[in-house]
Amino acid sequence: MPKEYIDLDAAILAAASAVGKKETEGPLGDLFDLCDDTDRFGAKTWEEAESEMQRMAFNTVLAKAELRDTDIGALFAGDLLNQCVGSAYGLLAFDIPYFGLYGACSTCAESLMLASTFVSNGIFDRCAAVTSSHYCSAERQYRTPIEYGGQRPPTAQWTVTGSGAFLVRKAQKGEKHAVVRRAMPGIVRERGVNDANNMGAAMAPAAEDTLVRFFRATDTRPCDYDLIVTGDLGYEGGTILCELMRADGFPLGDIYTDCGQLIYRRKEQDVHGGGSGCGCSAVVLASYLLPKLLRGDLSRILFLSTGAMMSPDSIKQGQNIPAVAHLLEITGGIS
Amino acid sequence: MPKEYIDLDAAILAAASAVGKKETEGPLGDLFDLCDDTDRFGAKTWEEAESEMQRMAFNTVLAKAELRDTDIGALFAGDLLNQCVGSAYGLLAFDIPYFGLYGACSTCAESLMLASTFVSNGIFDRCAAVTSSHYCSAERQYRTPIEYGGQRPPTAQWTVTGSGAFLVRKAQKGEKHAVVRRAMPGIVRERGVNDANNMGAAMAPAAEDTLVRFFRATDTRPCDYDLIVTGDLGYEGGTILCELMRADGFPLGDIYTDCGQLIYRRKEQDVHGGGSGCGCSAVVLASYLLPKLLRGDLSRILFLSTGAMMSPDSIKQGQNIPAVAHLLEITGGIS
Repeated sequence: MPKEYIDLDAAILAAASAVGKKETEGPLGDLFDLCDDTDRFGAKTWEEAESEMQRMAFNTVLAKAELRDTDIGALFAGDLLNQCVGSAYGLLAFDIPYFGLYGACSTCAESLMLASTFVSNGIFDRCAAVTSSHYCSAERQYRTPIEYGGQRPPTAQWTVTGSGAFLVRKAQKGEKHAVVRRAMPGIVRERGVNDANNMGAAMAPAAEDTLVRFFRATDTRPCDYDLIVTGDLGYEGGTILCELMRADGFPLGDIYTDCGQLIYRRKEQDVHGGGSGCGCSAVVLASYLLPKLLRGDLSRILFLSTGAMMSPDSIKQGQNIPAVAHLLEITGGIS
Repeated sequence: MPKEYIDLDAAILAAASAVGKKETEGPLGDLFDLCDDTDRFGAKTWEEAESEMQRMAFNTVLAKAELRDTDIGALFAGDLLNQCVGSAYGLLAFDIPYFGLYGACSTCAESLMLASTFVSNGIFDRCAAVTSSHYCSAERQYRTPIEYGGQRPPTAQWTVTGSGAFLVRKAQKGEKHAVVRRAMPGIVRERGVNDANNMGAAMAPAAEDTLVRFFRATDTRPCDYDLIVTGDLGYEGGTILCELMRADGFPLGDIYTDCGQLIYRRKEQDVHGGGSGCGCSAVVLASYLLPKLLRGDLSRILFLSTGAMMSPDSIKQGQNIPAVAHLLEITGGIS
């Protein structure tokens, strides 16, 4: 068996988030860097709005780190739109070598894992990771345009309008940064779920698989971490994951939460199954989890982004939903 | 300025290709490993056919290298389908950590670059890169279902039905393998082309950008290589690239060719602008270029996959076509 996890040493130099209206009305609303109450970001179409949101998030993270695009060796980016046009158009303005990714909602951890791998191994000095999702562009593409007013079942999740951007560099002694220490890429799993309105159930087995493999490979247990946070299993998927992990002998207990549960007020905001989308785990990590790590409120967390890898066509063709979960171990405090 | 290229030392252990009928009727027809004359690969839908073609190509490369899926540390894969379902479903059967990529037709070089980076830096012992495209699934998604019999303009390219799979490991002294020596990830470029039936013209400036940056960064010139081969600029884009490179002071001359020009007989096969698709550069590299490197017919080549990063929606919304070109320097002979 090959070694399953990746040792890393990547300091997160800066992070930035841009979100829409509903996200600022949620419990983390005050923490995000940028918000557009119209969700349009000055663009004529929802797709262009998503691109513009990415551009603004990435510009903000560059400004925070006092860097220019030419200081960045490579950009790892992706989104949910067909052909990942959110990223291709959104980051076109920057003169940075570009690796396009598609991991559905797992793309945040996937992009940060690759960026961290590149800087930890000295391939480039600094790399960036950017991801996004937009409620209106995602609804139109995956389900129906929002103007149709389609009824949502209780397990349906609400796609977050948001973009998160991160800059990483090899960690240096004495600096105060959150640091990506280990990573485990996910294996695609499919356990018979074919309901596109219950993606949490489809993704929970992928998260279980990555977590169990990680605990076994590193000889650690859930209690060795301050927090285990999945990307966007939401309420349904989060509950399933906790049950699966208990059966596997790794009960997660109180230290488990999910970005899709954190970002909205469940009842007041009528979000049914919780938040989802590439932007969900990205903006929660950028604006809620990383500051907690920097302040010392958390010292070691496991962060998993989970992705449901179906397409509207594959669902119509009667296929089940494959899913993947990428894991990062991130520490806070002084290197 | 950060360093622009990546030093690598990744031996291509094995490569495999699976193609459809039209590809076997082309000049390289006898070289491919697997072919299905129905283009269906036993599947009910074109999308499932593409997945099955990937699965077969990857199974073949594992068999050639006498390895099992559990011997592979990570898989880098992508295709042209919405949400990259060709890869997500096609590679589901294998228990290998999965990095999903989207770089349009540049995904072959992108996936090989990332796989080579991982093994060259000792992150995993062996990694795999798999890409595919399918004429019927691509036509339906990007243009119109083939049953409509839409008229094709002369610059339109023909999407290759094919999948290429590669296994890489850190090069070891005395072994005879093609070796990925250097790589340069592409920067996304957009030069005002918005005709989705002329992707060669949209992609040529991206290939020019990567080539010129590479020649400058490595202090080399076209004559330092036996062959410079682009992924799928086809006839139109290839001609444009040659003109651009001449103006830049790096005339490519006779050593330039393009996978989209190599794979079909231009007139007899009625392919207009030449071949294209993620599978085009992948199967030409796997079954034509790598054997030439192993035999010593070629000793040092530059291989660029080029990708047009638009979506059907972005074209309808009046946007131009962004493009990217990823470059690999590959050598033959004994390490």
